[in-house]
Amino acid sequence: MIKAVEWKESYLQLIDQTLIPSATVYKKITTIEETFEAIRNLRVRGAPAIGITAAYGLYLGMRESKASTREEFLAELSRHIEYLAEARPTAVNLFWAMDEIKERLHRSQTRDVNALKKELLTIALEIHEDDRQRCEEMANYGQEVIPEGARIITHCNTGALATGGIGTAFGVIYRAHQLGKQVSVFADETRPVLQGARLTVFELMEAGIPTTLICDNMAAALMQQRKVDLAIVGADRIAMDGSVANKIGTYNLAVLAKYHGIPFFVAAPLSTIDPEIHSGKDIPIETRPEDEIRKVFNQCLITVPSVPCWNPAFDVTPPELVSGIITEKGVLKPPYTKSIQEVLNNSLINS
Amino acid sequence: MIKAVEWKESYLQLIDQTLIPSATVYKKITTIEETFEAIRNLRVRGAPAIGITAAYGLYLGMRESKASTREEFLAELSRHIEYLAEARPTAVNLFWAMDEIKERLHRSQTRDVNALKKELLTIALEIHEDDRQRCEEMANYGQEVIPEGARIITHCNTGALATGGIGTAFGVIYRAHQLGKQVSVFADETRPVLQGARLTVFELMEAGIPTTLICDNMAAALMQQRKVDLAIVGADRIAMDGSVANKIGTYNLAVLAKYHGIPFFVAAPLSTIDPEIHSGKDIPIETRPEDEIRKVFNQCLITVPSVPCWNPAFDVTPPELVSGIITEKGVLKPPYTKSIQEVLNNSLINS
Repeated sequence: MIKAVEWKESYLQLIDQTLIPSATVYKKITTIEETFEAIRNLRVRGAPAIGITAAYGLYLGMRESKASTREEFLAELSRHIEYLAEARPTAVNLFWAMDEIKERLHRSQTRDVNALKKELLTIALEIHEDDRQRCEEMANYGQEVIPEGARIITHCNTGALATGGIGTAFGVIYRAHQLGKQVSVFADETRPVLQGARLTVFELMEAGIPTTLICDNMAAALMQQRKVDLAIVGADRIAMDGSVANKIGTYNLAVLAKYHGIPFFVAAPLSTIDPEIHSGKDIPIETRPEDEIRKVFNQCLITVPSVPCWNPAFDVTPPELVSGIITEKGVLKPPYTKSIQEVLNNSLINS
Repeated sequence: MIKAVEWKESYLQLIDQTLIPSATVYKKITTIEETFEAIRNLRVRGAPAIGITAAYGLYLGMRESKASTREEFLAELSRHIEYLAEARPTAVNLFWAMDEIKERLHRSQTRDVNALKKELLTIALEIHEDDRQRCEEMANYGQEVIPEGARIITHCNTGALATGGIGTAFGVIYRAHQLGKQVSVFADETRPVLQGARLTVFELMEAGIPTTLICDNMAAALMQQRKVDLAIVGADRIAMDGSVANKIGTYNLAVLAKYHGIPFFVAAPLSTIDPEIHSGKDIPIETRPEDEIRKVFNQCLITVPSVPCWNPAFDVTPPELVSGIITEKGVLKPPYTKSIQEVLNNSLINS
């Protein structure tokens, strides 16, 4: 299985996801500035993968640090965290991974700067490995919502390219396929950046899962004609009430699923839940450059060059449209205010 | 105002709509085969414009006819009608225009083949002029549904490029703008062929109407954020129960409008109503080449070249999602089985 993010002893290797499926180009990332650029420009994307990348990026930023004391080191780390936090505002995993590093280094007893550097890399590697395991667990728990022969619709990309493992929503589908459930998938192309057409189709076909590509606006007709049994998507941030911020078009799909009586599931690790955010309206939504709409792949101009565009990168699906949230601790059910609080409390006790 | 279809004494002139807005290229159409190619390959599109083009195309097919009798002439005409009917199966205006010609020539008394040819051209010119007038009347009647300052969402293209006049849905918007109602428009890009991004944006900006381009999957977030007041679209065929076949993605928009309590209007001339079709499920839906999805403008490959795609060109919106149908005889309201039957009966009496 393809690896979106890989630590190579002394540098970070990313697949440039803006070029898939036309080309598979690996990028060697050796500085925090290159990490920022790769996240901002979607060379690496997907909430979990962004978190992992940011963790390694912090190490790249700190490994040459001239700090001579623990205090100087931690102060410099905070500045780097603020810098990387600007790369993408919506995916909470980015902040979660960096907070995890900050907290663990603050808790650590060592005053030796070199030891702190080493510990930073160790934590980054652990975050990466943890995500791989979380994907496995989501894939397993998710099976309870996937019937034999399910015809599944998904949006954006949630596979190995988006995570440290087999994926979130994609991982659930992939496991169903491995178990011989005879699933098939309709992939939304996911305008404007076409993560579905470029990445999800690529991963589904590599995995040998029967795949049909559709334009986003065709999902309604598909449901009307009873050609789809359930929807599964990932998430970039989940509020404590169960509101789900995910790639633009997710809310559209959720409304359609509700209208047609089709179950709509979200798969995401618990790190996607933001305990600071109580409801969907508080989730910050990134607005991206208008040219993403006007030019396909920054090449093919599809409209009048001067037309104003509205390009929110994400939308928010309210909890009443979500049938369940598949996590590494099981499938959360409504009411989410209760089930989310419970699962977070239990994880805290066990950690 | 730009003219999609124009009769130039001895030939038909079309704007090649596959090239707008990058280039404005006029095509000289002198044969029925060229007419077929232009309709099939979307050089001319929009239900009313297709009907007008087919009418001229029949004349181009018949003007060199070697028929020596009225009977031979009418038999040859029937074969040409069958041929052109294959170009696009969903837009009923294509069949309507050709049936109109057939019926009127059958009713005509003349046995002179040259007179029949001349009459054919006269009817085509009348169909064209009638459509221009119908657009004006729809634009006027439509004003009752457009409030001052309305923020309108539309799908696909329904303007001068799609009709013989100022358009159907676009005409209503254009008239509101002319009347100083301060309307603004969100144009769905309308994947896969991007008629919204290419044609509607072009026409809106030419008309000086405030325009924002969005991807189709953003309409839901727009409605959730209360940034849009109503939707207006055109139609390719309307069943007697008020079901509306229109560009793929229309049904998506209608479901979203219903969910958010936003009025959803259809603007179409009465020739779009098919008295033979009683309900939406009986409307034939054209499936177009999969490469329309895989390659933007037949150039920019956006996915794995071998992925199967589902590419229905139209979808069917059931009557319960339609707030009103704006016609040249007024705005039809539910129940459509009654209002459509009445307006057709009245038109029959007056014609």
